[in-house]
Amino acid sequence: MSKIKNIQTQIFKVPLAEVLSDAKHGDHYHFELITSTVTLEDGSEGTGYTYTGGKGGHAIKAMIDHDFAPVLVGKDGTAVEELHDFMWWHIHYVGRGGIDAFAMAAVDIALWDIRCKKAGEPLWKVAGGSDNTCKAYCGGIDLLFPLPKLINSIQGYLDKGYNAVKIKIGRENMEEDMERIKAVREHIGPDVTFMVDANYALTVDQAIAYANRMKEYNIYWFEEPTIPDDHKGFGKIADATGVPLAMGENLHTIHEFEYAMADAKLSFVQPDASNCAGITGWLKAAKLAADHNIPVCSHGMQELHVSLVSSQPNAGWIEVHSFPIDEYTLRPLVVENHRAVAPDTPGIGVEFDWDKLAQYKQA
Amino acid sequence: MSKIKNIQTQIFKVPLAEVLSDAKHGDHYHFELITSTVTLEDGSEGTGYTYTGGKGGHAIKAMIDHDFAPVLVGKDGTAVEELHDFMWWHIHYVGRGGIDAFAMAAVDIALWDIRCKKAGEPLWKVAGGSDNTCKAYCGGIDLLFPLPKLINSIQGYLDKGYNAVKIKIGRENMEEDMERIKAVREHIGPDVTFMVDANYALTVDQAIAYANRMKEYNIYWFEEPTIPDDHKGFGKIADATGVPLAMGENLHTIHEFEYAMADAKLSFVQPDASNCAGITGWLKAAKLAADHNIPVCSHGMQELHVSLVSSQPNAGWIEVHSFPIDEYTLRPLVVENHRAVAPDTPGIGVEFDWDKLAQYKQA
Repeated sequence: MSKIKNIQTQIFKVPLAEVLSDAKHGDHYHFELITSTVTLEDGSEGTGYTYTGGKGGHAIKAMIDHDFAPVLVGKDGTAVEELHDFMWWHIHYVGRGGIDAFAMAAVDIALWDIRCKKAGEPLWKVAGGSDNTCKAYCGGIDLLFPLPKLINSIQGYLDKGYNAVKIKIGRENMEEDMERIKAVREHIGPDVTFMVDANYALTVDQAIAYANRMKEYNIYWFEEPTIPDDHKGFGKIADATGVPLAMGENLHTIHEFEYAMADAKLSFVQPDASNCAGITGWLKAAKLAADHNIPVCSHGMQELHVSLVSSQPNAGWIEVHSFPIDEYTLRPLVVENHRAVAPDTPGIGVEFDWDKLAQYKQA
Repeated sequence: MSKIKNIQTQIFKVPLAEVLSDAKHGDHYHFELITSTVTLEDGSEGTGYTYTGGKGGHAIKAMIDHDFAPVLVGKDGTAVEELHDFMWWHIHYVGRGGIDAFAMAAVDIALWDIRCKKAGEPLWKVAGGSDNTCKAYCGGIDLLFPLPKLINSIQGYLDKGYNAVKIKIGRENMEEDMERIKAVREHIGPDVTFMVDANYALTVDQAIAYANRMKEYNIYWFEEPTIPDDHKGFGKIADATGVPLAMGENLHTIHEFEYAMADAKLSFVQPDASNCAGITGWLKAAKLAADHNIPVCSHGMQELHVSLVSSQPNAGWIEVHSFPIDEYTLRPLVVENHRAVAPDTPGIGVEFDWDKLAQYKQA
């Protein structure tokens, strides 16, 4: 037991090396990183964080500063699950998915950092301990890359030691997407794992047509074929085609994961701790997936998710995302034998390079 | 067509006359009012708003200021539905219910204010025009009122000309709630309409027990018996007891209303324009309810909802809420012959008393 003394937040607007585009979020010029540093009265300190594609960061920071920090100070910072529950109910009327799930994440991850440091153990051990490595694939935000550039980008992933790749689909027409899928499959050969991601740009009927056309290219999973709110639509696509479906980056509450498990007939689920209320929320989703015999994967934030996915008995794949958060940490993701390796230092294993970030700090 | 010139937001923290409590939100000491004033290049101006139970207001304001205002300036302010759609997709990754639904509401309501002023018509006509009056009931946040005070409060509603009342339930044990329900029914007599609201404090099994016990008191509806995420749980309560169920204040997106229509077996639905993305969102929910033959009611914000509910062919009841927003407007709710009367002035009919609000303005 040690009381929370204070919570300090910061927001950074970090430019991307190039404009990245997908089917529904449009163009990304930068990402937002919102950090939350929690200090307990016994002097222990942890830093959590969340990120966005460029919108919502100030609202996330405002919620932590105005709605969470004042009421968390004085509460036991080691009672992580109780505080998670407290935050959920505290902002329930304006919550249950959206900004609150990101704001809760930044605080919850900081509390896990403290928990692991106090235990003197790395996150992968404290969160489950099944393994310290997991499968990893590279996912590009490459919808508008011309084909030669797309192939170059894919080759870059292979050169870095990955044997699984994902591309965005959802261009003007299906045949254009099929050409790109065919070209990538021909380039990588039959043995590299290959996923596609439509960022919910398709109707259910379009997605069924896509899934059937893609069968000859041996697609490992079809991610977010349609809007993440249409769980029964996902179920129809799975039933009609048998193609394995994946989603999770837009599921923010345990109830949304429950709807997905009940109706969406997913083969993979991809929670993101930064937007499903933190490590506590991610582990709840992972447990739910295990109960349904579904491998738990992740979206974004590879530097953290490597520890979470590795720790689980039903470990799937981490996504190595195009937002380069881990260029601003002291330990960028390590890959060995095609597998991502979790850090072994006490804590969550993500320490920011504050000097490098300073230039992007927002008022 | 006239472009948006600027969007100005303000936040007010308005104290309540006394502490108000319900089963799950705890104690309310004040409410937050967030206003959004939109000016078009042609000089027309409209003010929209949203409110909270005291948390989330700064995040709502931050989202409007940082994520909506900069990208809405220069867009056609008369294309209300297109802007609604634009806002939804613009903050989709951090959105889909929660803070964004409140932030969108404040902007959307301002655009409707402009639309109605330009048309020279009151909101009830522009939004549907079915009628300019509707049924109204008073709902107290009175869970912790001692019984004599509760009865006094109920009598106050009747004295003001209402013939329908709602109380909070969800105290320590069911018999305590039943005593209060019995006392209220005895006080109001058999002809006054009587609803109860558990603010999702009960499990499905508890709610079934409550519903069965309440039958002898002729309860018109049982509101939010269990958590708003458990649509199938609502369905079980309806099937097991036949007691009419209501919810809606915690449904923020059209998809959440769709889940409710599919599974919750509601007899009434209660969208709140201030938290389901504005008048555009409220009208979508109303249309969905009509398609399912369900009367559309409302939660909170009676000074605005009187126009919306009255305007609909499937009009249900407006709630006259304990948060006294309309003490800060120039036309508090009018009640005649037990019915609420919509304002007849061009615009949404809600103009704030800015001088009276000034003392509660937040930085």
